[in-house]
Amino acid sequence: MDLSIFDLNRNMGILEGLSPQDHELAQRRNRVLGPAAPLMYRRPVHIVTGEGAWLFGSDGTKYLDMYNNVASVGHGNARVAAAISAQARQLATHTRYLHASIVDYAERLVATLPASLNRVTFTCTGSEANDLAIRISRMQTGAEGVIVTRAAYHGGTSVVAACSPSSGPAAPWVRAIEPPDPRLAGGEDVGAWWAKQVGEAALSLEAAGYGVAALLIDTIFSSNGVIPSVPGALKAGIETARQHGAMFIADEVQPGFARLGEDLWGFLRHDVEPDFITMGKPMANGMPVAGLVGRSDLIDDFGVRENYFNTFGGNAVSMAAAIAVLDAIEEECLVERTGDIGRQLLNLTREVTSTDPSVSDVRGQGLFVAVEYTSEDGSPDTERAVEIVNRMREENILISTCGEYGNSLKIRPPLVVSPEQLVIFADGLSRAQEQ
Amino acid sequence: MDLSIFDLNRNMGILEGLSPQDHELAQRRNRVLGPAAPLMYRRPVHIVTGEGAWLFGSDGTKYLDMYNNVASVGHGNARVAAAISAQARQLATHTRYLHASIVDYAERLVATLPASLNRVTFTCTGSEANDLAIRISRMQTGAEGVIVTRAAYHGGTSVVAACSPSSGPAAPWVRAIEPPDPRLAGGEDVGAWWAKQVGEAALSLEAAGYGVAALLIDTIFSSNGVIPSVPGALKAGIETARQHGAMFIADEVQPGFARLGEDLWGFLRHDVEPDFITMGKPMANGMPVAGLVGRSDLIDDFGVRENYFNTFGGNAVSMAAAIAVLDAIEEECLVERTGDIGRQLLNLTREVTSTDPSVSDVRGQGLFVAVEYTSEDGSPDTERAVEIVNRMREENILISTCGEYGNSLKIRPPLVVSPEQLVIFADGLSRAQEQ
Repeated sequence: MDLSIFDLNRNMGILEGLSPQDHELAQRRNRVLGPAAPLMYRRPVHIVTGEGAWLFGSDGTKYLDMYNNVASVGHGNARVAAAISAQARQLATHTRYLHASIVDYAERLVATLPASLNRVTFTCTGSEANDLAIRISRMQTGAEGVIVTRAAYHGGTSVVAACSPSSGPAAPWVRAIEPPDPRLAGGEDVGAWWAKQVGEAALSLEAAGYGVAALLIDTIFSSNGVIPSVPGALKAGIETARQHGAMFIADEVQPGFARLGEDLWGFLRHDVEPDFITMGKPMANGMPVAGLVGRSDLIDDFGVRENYFNTFGGNAVSMAAAIAVLDAIEEECLVERTGDIGRQLLNLTREVTSTDPSVSDVRGQGLFVAVEYTSEDGSPDTERAVEIVNRMREENILISTCGEYGNSLKIRPPLVVSPEQLVIFADGLSRAQEQ
Repeated sequence: MDLSIFDLNRNMGILEGLSPQDHELAQRRNRVLGPAAPLMYRRPVHIVTGEGAWLFGSDGTKYLDMYNNVASVGHGNARVAAAISAQARQLATHTRYLHASIVDYAERLVATLPASLNRVTFTCTGSEANDLAIRISRMQTGAEGVIVTRAAYHGGTSVVAACSPSSGPAAPWVRAIEPPDPRLAGGEDVGAWWAKQVGEAALSLEAAGYGVAALLIDTIFSSNGVIPSVPGALKAGIETARQHGAMFIADEVQPGFARLGEDLWGFLRHDVEPDFITMGKPMANGMPVAGLVGRSDLIDDFGVRENYFNTFGGNAVSMAAAIAVLDAIEEECLVERTGDIGRQLLNLTREVTSTDPSVSDVRGQGLFVAVEYTSEDGSPDTERAVEIVNRMREENILISTCGEYGNSLKIRPPLVVSPEQLVIFADGLSRAQEQ
């Protein structure tokens, strides 16, 4: 969850236009969950079931889901549900007993990665994976500082939230730099320009006595507004960070598992080798499964000196679900398909928005597209983005916003979205922007 | 997971007496998970399925599970599996859409608690719940310090691990005190004695400039060796902590959901009202479901000033599983049953161990029993405890160790364990101690 939803697209109890039943449910919800659990959209949706990229409301309304990246192989996926069902009836214990599925899955996972990333630790959330990567990085470097990007979101634990400027104040041991956005590099090579940002942040952390434990980067810069940048753009910055002793943690929670349509992982297009990669969200299509893959020397040393145990992490039901997702990605060729259909989505979106003078940029990579709105005076047009999101909801199409100023649409459907559904989306966007 | 498994009962690759197939699996496991993921027992077990308190190995061996507190309503519980199966085929999205199950479950949860604990936030692990409770406590108090007990274990995030002396070094902002063990109070009222420990820790944190954000207590002191203490023993200490401005976080991850056989929650027997309670492990019988219930003023203010979002937390599959567990606890009267059968377990264990001169104490509450071993010279007899655990494994009965010195057996079966199974356990313990 990033900036947009927290600050811009959250409904703190307006509850416009709900049916009496939904209004009552929303009021009960507010009584027991409170304002810390806002709903999306001015008129919230009540979803009861899904199929592929379709979602169905309690009143039978059919919504096109252009937002959810967790149910990546489709809502209610039959293969995943069957795997979960079968295993839940058998066993789901902690992983200090031998069990084949954790080994089978971990082996398949490392087989998709460079040889140096050869140790797996399972968690339940991406937050836990990022927290653990920071914990190990700090132990191994003896430093405390972390470099992130300005509107980064990496999760919700105390330490990870403190590294997530989009969700609250950053800690004193955090330096937040710009993402490697070619538009900011002013004609300079974006990689070299970004490396300078990294170097300055490192020097600042060193001067403050924190040192640099890690450079923590979402390789598609989701909450910064989806910044595909150019292949290789991260390379020089990571080398700079390493010269300062830092570990490089690639946060693949959003870009991972084929989302970007080029490889299974986002970092691969930058020709870099992370010390750790973290993953989560689509890993098991909605089951709480996440993990960390890293260098064996780092993880083994940590495991001997301290200890990490995650009661639910890697349990047999979680592994069954994760295996079913990997099967689906492989058998349905979702990396290649996402590349193809992602290009269609980007082209359609560019075409439709070309008539809207408030659109200043349309960018994307795979099935992750952003449409940026700018006012006539050049300032971010957040209001317009939020307005479009809410109009799209009235078209029964679900999206949200992203970016430091929340002035970009976040378009990120399940990977199984069809070409026909993209046309429905484009038609809806066309109507929404013309209202 | 506590001290015992980390330091004493973990198998770093000895792999004694495994079948060729299991030996190969263990070697593959070690290659991909490494020494950070040890196995239990000198001769690890390979479990493939379970039913109630029985576990079945890959070679057909039938094990009696006297250890797992997650599968509280029974391994492979049909009701829970059916709930998961049905919902997994429907929907499992994030919770920024309206959905009935999160509201239904949250309402049932708060109905089991004092009126002041009226806001629920769902997470996936107890670690996340404790981390969030600390995060909110720090925001609300402006202080950083946390008071825990000496061998406490509260979870694995960076901040929570730093509050868990049993899993690694405590942070400078942590003070670890003794649990309210009547044996340590030297005849003094244990509540008054413990309150003095709390007061001294608070003064020490204040003197060091950290202040006191929270007193974080597992209400059965699991990793301290299971210390039931006496009803009301926590009351004075909590008042003392509050006089220093601290929040009281009751960690109910282990004692909660009927484990102690008196109430659904462990804190209730101490006649205290926590500011937050955290829960996890048995909450959904193995599905990664956990949460935090707290005072609405604290959680609402946090939710407005910062933000917390947990992608998987509270999703419909998690809620379906949690509802099924609560149904089972209520319909099978597991609070009362655990009280009855827990007394049988404690009596049987006392009876059997009365002939073993190395046993210095047998204590317990509900289905959570510890047998403590002491050497002739009065020092903790850790070796004996570990030996008994491994002999019990050869009897096909699974237990582990606990306590600051790992010299106590940790006996903690699924709540559905039968009286006949307790007799099998006692017979096995009798043989194990006489070898």
